[in-house]
Amino acid sequence: MEKIRVGIVGYGNLGRGVQSSIAQNPDMELVAIFTRRQPEGIQSSVQMVHMSEIESYIGKVDVMILCGGSATDLPEQGPFLASMFNTVDSFDRHAKIPEYFDAVDGAARKGGHASVISTGWDPGLFSLNRLLAEAVLPEGTDYTFWGKGVSQGHSDAIRRIAGVKAGVQYTIPSDEAVQRVRDGENPELSTREKHLRECFVVAEPGEDLARIEREITTMPNYFADYETRVHFIGEEELKQNHSAMPHGGLVFRSGKTGESSKQIIEFGLKLDSNPEFTGSVLVAYARAIHRYAKEGFIGAKTVFDIPFSYLSPKSGAQLRQELL
Amino acid sequence: MEKIRVGIVGYGNLGRGVQSSIAQNPDMELVAIFTRRQPEGIQSSVQMVHMSEIESYIGKVDVMILCGGSATDLPEQGPFLASMFNTVDSFDRHAKIPEYFDAVDGAARKGGHASVISTGWDPGLFSLNRLLAEAVLPEGTDYTFWGKGVSQGHSDAIRRIAGVKAGVQYTIPSDEAVQRVRDGENPELSTREKHLRECFVVAEPGEDLARIEREITTMPNYFADYETRVHFIGEEELKQNHSAMPHGGLVFRSGKTGESSKQIIEFGLKLDSNPEFTGSVLVAYARAIHRYAKEGFIGAKTVFDIPFSYLSPKSGAQLRQELL
Repeated sequence: MEKIRVGIVGYGNLGRGVQSSIAQNPDMELVAIFTRRQPEGIQSSVQMVHMSEIESYIGKVDVMILCGGSATDLPEQGPFLASMFNTVDSFDRHAKIPEYFDAVDGAARKGGHASVISTGWDPGLFSLNRLLAEAVLPEGTDYTFWGKGVSQGHSDAIRRIAGVKAGVQYTIPSDEAVQRVRDGENPELSTREKHLRECFVVAEPGEDLARIEREITTMPNYFADYETRVHFIGEEELKQNHSAMPHGGLVFRSGKTGESSKQIIEFGLKLDSNPEFTGSVLVAYARAIHRYAKEGFIGAKTVFDIPFSYLSPKSGAQLRQELL
Repeated sequence: MEKIRVGIVGYGNLGRGVQSSIAQNPDMELVAIFTRRQPEGIQSSVQMVHMSEIESYIGKVDVMILCGGSATDLPEQGPFLASMFNTVDSFDRHAKIPEYFDAVDGAARKGGHASVISTGWDPGLFSLNRLLAEAVLPEGTDYTFWGKGVSQGHSDAIRRIAGVKAGVQYTIPSDEAVQRVRDGENPELSTREKHLRECFVVAEPGEDLARIEREITTMPNYFADYETRVHFIGEEELKQNHSAMPHGGLVFRSGKTGESSKQIIEFGLKLDSNPEFTGSVLVAYARAIHRYAKEGFIGAKTVFDIPFSYLSPKSGAQLRQELL
């Protein structure tokens, strides 16, 4: 079997997640990892290459998996690399997607390559479920819950409070709200009714814990309107139990058919490692866009445009027999 | 907007489900319902046509939605109608799918039409989730739970017991088993550990209820190996509370990435009306196959081959903006 030759652009948490996913997919081969840092300083069993040399890999890499951030990296790297390689990314700024799509699509067309943007799980698998559920149940209401997962913004807000040494905040779907949706109640729920906030805080020695807790739970915008739970723990415990990157969430559509039949579609993720899961989605879509490129497709796609058969190394006949 | 002209073949529960779904989709128009019964005898606001006249609708119907049974109707009607029309069906005999696919594909190619087979939810939406989850998490275990829903076979078995006047059996996923999968325990579960059986029974007057209950719960294959609950109720209550057709189920993949990160993907349906939901899926795939036919595609597809954008009346740009 000829392997799909893959490059990783950016070697943070997501890049490492992609690397470990490639190792699970025998039809894939990791050619090199491209980084803006000095490649000599990075410990890795894989070929590390400075970004400035990426053009010399034209023809040697079938798909580049872009693992930079959506704020500043991808708006520049996405179109630039799409002009030279087939690409896949997880651009996640919802409001900017149409603009980003056009930029990558234009660059890919000019260069004669194929790209898929905004894979991952939200955008990505969650978006797919929103589209499927809306198409099947045109009359209905959507609900998205996020978590249990770390919110960087809320963790930062805790750490800015005087006397706080370290802290982590988890956003958690409210069991009660989820149950009401599952039961078909079709409730009107604000973000604050759908989620609660759980904080693990390391205080400086001798601080007034009641004061810190009060400052957290009354903080406007971040916590004041939410059910917020604060736990004070030691530094060692924080390091040991709260340095993983879990995440997940739930997407529901609560619809109606016929006279008054309630129909509920639910999709959920419970992830021990957000970057490893997102990396696994990127790798599956790398397989798909490589196949489109081989078929002669030029331009950009999103997850909406790609049938699931393209994500799998199995043939159509095998899929029909084993999985339909 | 030019509407998609749809025909329904077969006017049982599923045909009526499709009819009510078409009414929710303003880009669709129901041209006629085709039946093997005498059309004059059927009450309906729609044009009823005898099956023998279906050929006169060539050119007047864009997609035929096949609502016959998978045991005897579809193996014959599927290829026959695919030679004359674009078709969509919910053929659900898993083991026979490859053979049925080839028959419909061959007929569609000969006639120059497009067909999609085995839509619905299992096969259909459940299959899609099995494929997606396997592609994203190549190392993992799949779990499928069915219910809460009526099992015709088990209901029939109850009704064959002496002294039973009427009865309905629900298959229900075991809460405990579902929770163990959701918690990432990766348990080995037999079908009987995953489901329990709940029976609502109307006994003939004067019968020994303890004897009937014992005959149900000890019945080999059907009940003996399951946790089985038997409720005796009156005929009126059975009619009022147990003549609906709810169904649903859960598909999980419990996978592993990196060193030891557990990653769980869950898809669930909770349906008040199985035929109305299945009908709604058929209608969304009718839209898709119509679009493929307009683009010049000839032959058969399955849900695996169709991107979700084809299920929606919205444009690609609109989908990217609203749902990605």
